[in-house]
Amino acid sequence: VSAEVASLPFGIFSVGADLPRAGVKLGERVLDLSGLLEDPVFDHDTLNPFLALGPAAWASTRAALADLVTATDGGTKERVDRHAISLADVRMHLPIAVADFVDFYSSLEHASNAGKILRPRDEPLMPNWRHLPVGYHGRAGTVVNSGTAVRRPRGQQLTADGAVVHEPSSKLDIEVELGFVVGAGSVHGSTVDIDDFTEHVFGTVLLIDWSARDIQAWEYRPLGPFLSKSFATSISPWVVPLGDLASARIAPAVQDPAPLPHLTSSAPFTYDIRLELRLNGHLVSAPEFASMYWTPAQQLAHMTSNGASLRTGDLYGTGTISSWDVSGFGSFMELTWNGRDPIVLPTGEQRGFLADGDEVSITASAPGPDGVRIDLGEVTGRVLPTEPYPDPPASSTTPTPTQEG
Amino acid sequence: VSAEVASLPFGIFSVGADLPRAGVKLGERVLDLSGLLEDPVFDHDTLNPFLALGPAAWASTRAALADLVTATDGGTKERVDRHAISLADVRMHLPIAVADFVDFYSSLEHASNAGKILRPRDEPLMPNWRHLPVGYHGRAGTVVNSGTAVRRPRGQQLTADGAVVHEPSSKLDIEVELGFVVGAGSVHGSTVDIDDFTEHVFGTVLLIDWSARDIQAWEYRPLGPFLSKSFATSISPWVVPLGDLASARIAPAVQDPAPLPHLTSSAPFTYDIRLELRLNGHLVSAPEFASMYWTPAQQLAHMTSNGASLRTGDLYGTGTISSWDVSGFGSFMELTWNGRDPIVLPTGEQRGFLADGDEVSITASAPGPDGVRIDLGEVTGRVLPTEPYPDPPASSTTPTPTQEG
Repeated sequence: VSAEVASLPFGIFSVGADLPRAGVKLGERVLDLSGLLEDPVFDHDTLNPFLALGPAAWASTRAALADLVTATDGGTKERVDRHAISLADVRMHLPIAVADFVDFYSSLEHASNAGKILRPRDEPLMPNWRHLPVGYHGRAGTVVNSGTAVRRPRGQQLTADGAVVHEPSSKLDIEVELGFVVGAGSVHGSTVDIDDFTEHVFGTVLLIDWSARDIQAWEYRPLGPFLSKSFATSISPWVVPLGDLASARIAPAVQDPAPLPHLTSSAPFTYDIRLELRLNGHLVSAPEFASMYWTPAQQLAHMTSNGASLRTGDLYGTGTISSWDVSGFGSFMELTWNGRDPIVLPTGEQRGFLADGDEVSITASAPGPDGVRIDLGEVTGRVLPTEPYPDPPASSTTPTPTQEG
Repeated sequence: VSAEVASLPFGIFSVGADLPRAGVKLGERVLDLSGLLEDPVFDHDTLNPFLALGPAAWASTRAALADLVTATDGGTKERVDRHAISLADVRMHLPIAVADFVDFYSSLEHASNAGKILRPRDEPLMPNWRHLPVGYHGRAGTVVNSGTAVRRPRGQQLTADGAVVHEPSSKLDIEVELGFVVGAGSVHGSTVDIDDFTEHVFGTVLLIDWSARDIQAWEYRPLGPFLSKSFATSISPWVVPLGDLASARIAPAVQDPAPLPHLTSSAPFTYDIRLELRLNGHLVSAPEFASMYWTPAQQLAHMTSNGASLRTGDLYGTGTISSWDVSGFGSFMELTWNGRDPIVLPTGEQRGFLADGDEVSITASAPGPDGVRIDLGEVTGRVLPTEPYPDPPASSTTPTPTQEG
């Protein structure tokens, strides 16, 4: 198996003014699926119709594609070539219509680091942390495709001298995460068994969880992060099917205490995925997904353990992937210890948090069959300055409300 | 103006096996809009296509309907009658495809009560509470139509003796809320001015925010409520356009400190809406929306003040509507002071929190033109027992993962 066919990730592409449609990435080319497989399920601007077909259809499509791209007869090769477009000639789009977006907080290292930084006088981990994968809902409508520029948010902050201001964030950060994409939904009121993870989850993307630390610190009690996260979340354009990651399955971290039965797999696993975080092209960190405390299957089981249903297009982020030492810290808050120890780029530039114009990139790879490495692609985003704030209206034309109406 | 035509709420109905489509409620009848107005925008199973048209289309549709239903000529009356169906003959559906769901926490009375109950040793209000409308994202995929039975969720809880268990909630509660429905979206990266509230928000629904207090108490730190809320949220089937509530506009609560400029309307208003909460048909509380500290326009401005975009179908809950005394408490947590003082129904039954089989109902009304009262409809939900939990698989057929794959 060559690296080129070890993974066939799915995405949504367009050529020129054509409507976006589904394709798979084959090396430096995109295969146009609706043409190649003659199936209208791929002739949509999101992968959702295909994902909704469920795991049997995902597997049979994968098998059909593998046969096509490894065929040696001239007729099949010509057919594949006829539906192949150079990556250089396509524009990639957000691969899924995001239904609900959930973000977890499942790295023991990150949660410990964040606790030490943000609540230095308290125990870094809350009492619940080792019992359940802590998570919260994020904003689905602001999940954007890789490459979309992200405006620095303005938000309420408490200044050092106790004033409350509404200013552009000066602690703009990112978190290095994977996102898992739900294909097959579930019934509202029923739970999803932890061992049914691959029956529901289609694949994974790389995810930038943009975070404004100063806004977060002021707003998050008692109901959690809101505007500090909701301005943008970026994902990679190519969804790597879980089936492509069979060779990357490894035993997960040991959990103490043992999780409750509904969070206990009959055969626990996670994925050996190595990530790299770059700032303006310079490698600044290399987090390892294998170190995560809670697995994606446990996250899925937890999320549905109250009867909440899954829908096609649900996306959940794993939470920051981090480490005990700076080489694998998955956020600038950790890399610079909340700005105290700026990182120095090879150019001599220093960064506590992100500056306008900065470009962040996450790439990743995993073991594939026969010793090849599978490329999980890339997610990038560049920081735009805050939009100038509109002046308050000098004289309003809005009718004055009255008690009478 | 009669009470019947003072408000023309929009919803999605079906008759028999016909496909769901949009209608307006006219007294005890539903007018079939795609037939009556001969406009295919109403021939969908959600109101979203109509809502997306924006405020000018909402106003012109309202004007056209008012003309039709108040016409006195025989031809027009016959035309209206031809597209009218008795409410008794229709089935109502969820009126919107919910995009993002946000829930606020904007009653000073409720936030103070909740703080006293849940954190008795601390200040009831967090330092941020009077500076911004605290809120968080909820689960859009489990917003259900009024009348949908709601299963009691199972969830992790910390018992009194310090054990962590995964059991059906024994503190199942509801919060009395209004929901505001966004029609016209906004541009990602830009803010929405507080005075543009009615340019974006189409109307309001009644909302039951189902809440499992024992699950919430264990899970909510530091990222907020998650599974304690995500199992279900119920909304009323009829969306009342804001335009119908012009006579209900009143001055909002005085705010101290004065809000920052982006949260300051040129002409602040809220709505004089009286709600009633019933348990199994017995009135247990009558909260007043007018008492809310943060207004729906402030909530909208806050939600977008970081550049987060709005989409058609976004829904935001106001947070529990409550009062300083038991007559208007908007949750059972407050009504029974966390179960300590059960309420006694006229039947002699007592309730700390909700029992299986209980039916909750919220109704509401507001001042309309010419002294009539506008009916905001009803949202109901009945509690089903927790689904029996599946036994753990005795012997799994899942392949054992290996380090090699």
